[in-house]
Amino acid sequence: MAADTKTNVAVIGATGFTGEKLIELLLGHPRVTVSYISAKIDKECAFSEIFPHFKGRLDIICKNLDMEEAVSKAQVIFLALPHKISLEIAPFFLKKKKIVIDLSADYRFKDVAVYEQYYKTTHTDSANLRNAVYGLPEFYRDAIKKTQLVANPGCYPTVSILSTAPLLKAKLLENIIIDAKSGITGAGRHASLAYHFAHLHGNLFSYKPFGHQHLPEITQILSDIAKTKVQLRFSPHVIPAERGILATIHGQLTKAMDIKELNALYTQCYEHEPFVRFLGQQLPQLKDVIETNCCDIGLQTEGKNIVIVGTIDNLIKGASGQAIQNMNIICGWDETLGLL
Amino acid sequence: MAADTKTNVAVIGATGFTGEKLIELLLGHPRVTVSYISAKIDKECAFSEIFPHFKGRLDIICKNLDMEEAVSKAQVIFLALPHKISLEIAPFFLKKKKIVIDLSADYRFKDVAVYEQYYKTTHTDSANLRNAVYGLPEFYRDAIKKTQLVANPGCYPTVSILSTAPLLKAKLLENIIIDAKSGITGAGRHASLAYHFAHLHGNLFSYKPFGHQHLPEITQILSDIAKTKVQLRFSPHVIPAERGILATIHGQLTKAMDIKELNALYTQCYEHEPFVRFLGQQLPQLKDVIETNCCDIGLQTEGKNIVIVGTIDNLIKGASGQAIQNMNIICGWDETLGLL
Amino acid sequence: MAADTKTNVAVIGATGFTGEKLIELLLGHPRVTVSYISAKIDKECAFSEIFPHFKGRLDIICKNLDMEEAVSKAQVIFLALPHKISLEIAPFFLKKKKIVIDLSADYRFKDVAVYEQYYKTTHTDSANLRNAVYGLPEFYRDAIKKTQLVANPGCYPTVSILSTAPLLKAKLLENIIIDAKSGITGAGRHASLAYHFAHLHGNLFSYKPFGHQHLPEITQILSDIAKTKVQLRFSPHVIPAERGILATIHGQLTKAMDIKELNALYTQCYEHEPFVRFLGQQLPQLKDVIETNCCDIGLQTEGKNIVIVGTIDNLIKGASGQAIQNMNIICGWDETLGLL
Amino acid sequence: MAADTKTNVAVIGATGFTGEKLIELLLGHPRVTVSYISAKIDKECAFSEIFPHFKGRLDIICKNLDMEEAVSKAQVIFLALPHKISLEIAPFFLKKKKIVIDLSADYRFKDVAVYEQYYKTTHTDSANLRNAVYGLPEFYRDAIKKTQLVANPGCYPTVSILSTAPLLKAKLLENIIIDAKSGITGAGRHASLAYHFAHLHGNLFSYKPFGHQHLPEITQILSDIAKTKVQLRFSPHVIPAERGILATIHGQLTKAMDIKELNALYTQCYEHEPFVRFLGQQLPQLKDVIETNCCDIGLQTEGKNIVIVGTIDNLIKGASGQAIQNMNIICGWDETLGLL
Repeated sequence: MAADTKTNVAVIGATGFTGEKLIELLLGHPRVTVSYISAKIDKECAFSEIFPHFKGRLDIICKNLDMEEAVSKAQVIFLALPHKISLEIAPFFLKKKKIVIDLSADYRFKDVAVYEQYYKTTHTDSANLRNAVYGLPEFYRDAIKKTQLVANPGCYPTVSILSTAPLLKAKLLENIIIDAKSGITGAGRHASLAYHFAHLHGNLFSYKPFGHQHLPEITQILSDIAKTKVQLRFSPHVIPAERGILATIHGQLTKAMDIKELNALYTQCYEHEPFVRFLGQQLPQLKDVIETNCCDIGLQTEGKNIVIVGTIDNLIKGASGQAIQNMNIICGWDETLGLL
Repeated sequence: MAADTKTNVAVIGATGFTGEKLIELLLGHPRVTVSYISAKIDKECAFSEIFPHFKGRLDIICKNLDMEEAVSKAQVIFLALPHKISLEIAPFFLKKKKIVIDLSADYRFKDVAVYEQYYKTTHTDSANLRNAVYGLPEFYRDAIKKTQLVANPGCYPTVSILSTAPLLKAKLLENIIIDAKSGITGAGRHASLAYHFAHLHGNLFSYKPFGHQHLPEITQILSDIAKTKVQLRFSPHVIPAERGILATIHGQLTKAMDIKELNALYTQCYEHEPFVRFLGQQLPQLKDVIETNCCDIGLQTEGKNIVIVGTIDNLIKGASGQAIQNMNIICGWDETLGLL
Repeated sequence: MAADTKTNVAVIGATGFTGEKLIELLLGHPRVTVSYISAKIDKECAFSEIFPHFKGRLDIICKNLDMEEAVSKAQVIFLALPHKISLEIAPFFLKKKKIVIDLSADYRFKDVAVYEQYYKTTHTDSANLRNAVYGLPEFYRDAIKKTQLVANPGCYPTVSILSTAPLLKAKLLENIIIDAKSGITGAGRHASLAYHFAHLHGNLFSYKPFGHQHLPEITQILSDIAKTKVQLRFSPHVIPAERGILATIHGQLTKAMDIKELNALYTQCYEHEPFVRFLGQQLPQLKDVIETNCCDIGLQTEGKNIVIVGTIDNLIKGASGQAIQNMNIICGWDETLGLL
Repeated sequence: MAADTKTNVAVIGATGFTGEKLIELLLGHPRVTVSYISAKIDKECAFSEIFPHFKGRLDIICKNLDMEEAVSKAQVIFLALPHKISLEIAPFFLKKKKIVIDLSADYRFKDVAVYEQYYKTTHTDSANLRNAVYGLPEFYRDAIKKTQLVANPGCYPTVSILSTAPLLKAKLLENIIIDAKSGITGAGRHASLAYHFAHLHGNLFSYKPFGHQHLPEITQILSDIAKTKVQLRFSPHVIPAERGILATIHGQLTKAMDIKELNALYTQCYEHEPFVRFLGQQLPQLKDVIETNCCDIGLQTEGKNIVIVGTIDNLIKGASGQAIQNMNIICGWDETLGLL
């Protein structure tokens, strides 16, 4: 694409937390124009009527999805939808030769049975699934460059995988327990007493300590990276914050390693990555990654015991920012465009 | 009532913020037993199933309202309901000689036309309205003692009236503007995106700066106390907090007064009141009244200009605590029972 | 002591979070009078001048400590002090036959070397240490009854021990990792940028993932209860909340157990305890224990893997409430006095 | 300055909330390089050591101020200092022909006596004061273009002036009371129990309801804009939020106006302003301006009574963003550079 023309992009599912943040980031991206947005809404209206802070920045109408119109208006289609819905509409866009970046779980699992078990639904598009690439640039950049369909990673998987992959790749980590803490936007924008300010303010709780749907995503990808079957435990929590995930990873080294070796391992893995910041023995603060596309990682050890702490903004590196990073890669642009 | 037997009380509307807090306070009250609770619910179940922190403290079933059963089980009936519903059920309880403490607005307005204008409904019980007493003990204690029906004050009116009445009674205050700030529980327990943690965290907004339904309640009662028609402006806000109201009252003294005179006026008015704390020129902090039945008041002046700041816990002095205070008065008990 | 006279109590260290909360709870206790309070302060003044919400409830002067005066005024002495200071003053009170309830770590470790290693100071009172009893009523009630010196447990240890002891006593739990999350009051009342609202709001961080001073306290007591050396990992976090600790305990059962057996084990252990609520497979919400002396516990399993979640209010069951519970036991009063 | 070279800028006072945010914004500005930063610090170190989220983005050393070095390294000097300190160092930079943008109050008052009364210090630089321009672009753009010394407006004044100036210019507003609510960063980065998370969480308070130092700044500038002496009342509050100011302005119209006329007046005043968004009768939500350089304004009326609500991010439009806007104007760049 020529440097002086802009690429038109569509956001399907524009009114969720993810869709809204995606649009905000796209508006600051120098190479794209947001040309079509849709959401399930009762009354079609200007996006800035729903979100007044977009006034003067994006005044196009947010409509119920019309796939033909989306196709006619955009080259890149972002799907910021609940799982299962993507399965229904991605095939059409792919057939029309559009680039599709799907933020749902629908194309993340190579093993359909795992998807069907955890998402309690039938997978109806194994054809495209074969060509989908898991959009974690730090480990799948080359494949992303060539794909037409990105399965954008989940929020917990992003931080969990980035925090442990260097050690797992070298088969140096075992007995892994991921204790993750997430702000409430991770649960999506739904009217519910469970998300009521008066309920969450000053509150904290554990949920799905076994069997969370992000567990198989984490193990599948880590197994692929480590080239051996990885098993681990994953246990998430909701904290009284709006944004961000901090994952505390408790594990054991398979052999004694000093801090220098550990630092070298992580530095080597990530030193050329624009969005991973390895802090050495300093443990990251959640707040430092909010409103960034960064994953911060720090670690400490005692004997063979290790604690690794990773942080991301769930809406950015954990969703919309990473989606844009993937678009940048596919389009051959500077990977950091619109993300600094 | 004999000191050694307990009085049975019912809470109708048990699952709202107000009903829940009322039950919590009643469980700590030495003279009552919570014998009947109801709410609009899909599936009747133990109250402690809905609110686990009541486990072992109140395990009776929360049912859909059966008025006959309530009558058979309780002597005092608290109505913690949306306005208009009280009108439909209070007459039955009153006929059955029960004491009714209504936390809605339905019996607060002596002038039915004002009620109908602000609450956009028809008042259907003028018979009982005549006998209702406005349950602000600091100004209507004697009448409360003798009534069978208490109209428990609204939250904004409670703090607004208590903060200004001493000056207004003496005709010393004019050009009053009340700028009130409330935690989100003031809006009731409803699933809504407007009350979502992610929306309110770090947020603040003004609403209904003219025409809020608590405005005519404030002016009606202050006019009655001041024995002259009081007019003022009232403008509320929602703050990112769960509980409490802080009202900043901007006004002008009708004559120059020094601090000593002002202190004497407020002290004289409230020195025997168990739940009003006059702080002199120290302005109250919202947090100091949370989980108390107290109204804290402080004031400062510059020439004839005065700023009075009042604070209450909207769920306690602004609703459930004051309701219990009213019950204590009617039953002839120590007014502070269950409230310290 | 006669039922109709009140016992005088002193709080040394009255202005910390713990001291303030202790005084608040003691003011609601029917059998005691707060007769002496002290703190390290520049200017002696009424306690209600420092904390206005005590106005009218406690107006005695808060002084710099005068041990003779404290002895002359009180029968029970609460020490809410930083560690090491208790060592310097407890011996005097004990010699004067006072009951001493020490909220610091100074008398918690039977092994002085462990104390000295973790608290980086010398232990100077091994004489009294011998007679000190660890004040966790659920496991040391009989010894507490007879002691003159209570070492009140730390906040993290209280919830960690209560959550795991039933399984450890039966030697059914191993490979334990405690991932704990605490509100900021756990760090004490200090002016620091690290505790600034703007720093913590929306933040979360891990600290001391190895070597936290509560780790040896947890393992010492659990080893004593389990009658075998217990080892585990303990890793704390600060969450953006004021109060409360939620401990997520990841472990493995030493043999397969079904839910029924687990429920029976915990129920049997705690069914007569007034302040432990076992919720079965429902995981506790932090908020439900705030402002209570309760520890809520829930658990879930998958195969031999188990996650136990425990919650307490760090200032109450984790400090001041438990201190009062210990006083009640020593004085032979109802253990729940002042705590419901 | 040539479009292809970057201008070097210095930030003096880099570690306050304002300095930190200023640097963050400057790093995203396409025409400048942050070439010198200083603060009062014990140990000089890389800025990213103090604030890890700057790692890889700004790694220059943060030193104690050396004015000669600053002069040699930068063309534009931002002073993000407590008042009075600017007075001591600005003259040197001005003599060296640097552009100085002072974020303190030191050059905001044309009447030195007012400054000295409210800031309780002596003004020592009336020479430069004469040439200083009040940096509110919406009303002083032409003068800013030509000045070497900008007195960047205070946070409360920015929102208060922008919200009322259209009406005051037309002499249509009187009896003005500004009830302002600010997040805690407005108080600066200081370690204090008053700013402790545990104190502010769930809290709210009024302070300096008379005599706040921003009052004379507001009236001075509004009088200048209105070409008549403006008097008003100003009363600020701290809310439990990190960022942002919402000002509720209660006033009276001097003549009856319908909504159409009001909308026309504000629209005409601000329609070409890039950073003022007039929302008509919709009242702004604080959150919508956070992380933006915008001031949102809405208003409602009842008869001649009017409530105007204005919002800004105190650290951006109320400080650092506006400082950059002023730099853009002086340098002849697009006014929105680095601010969208």
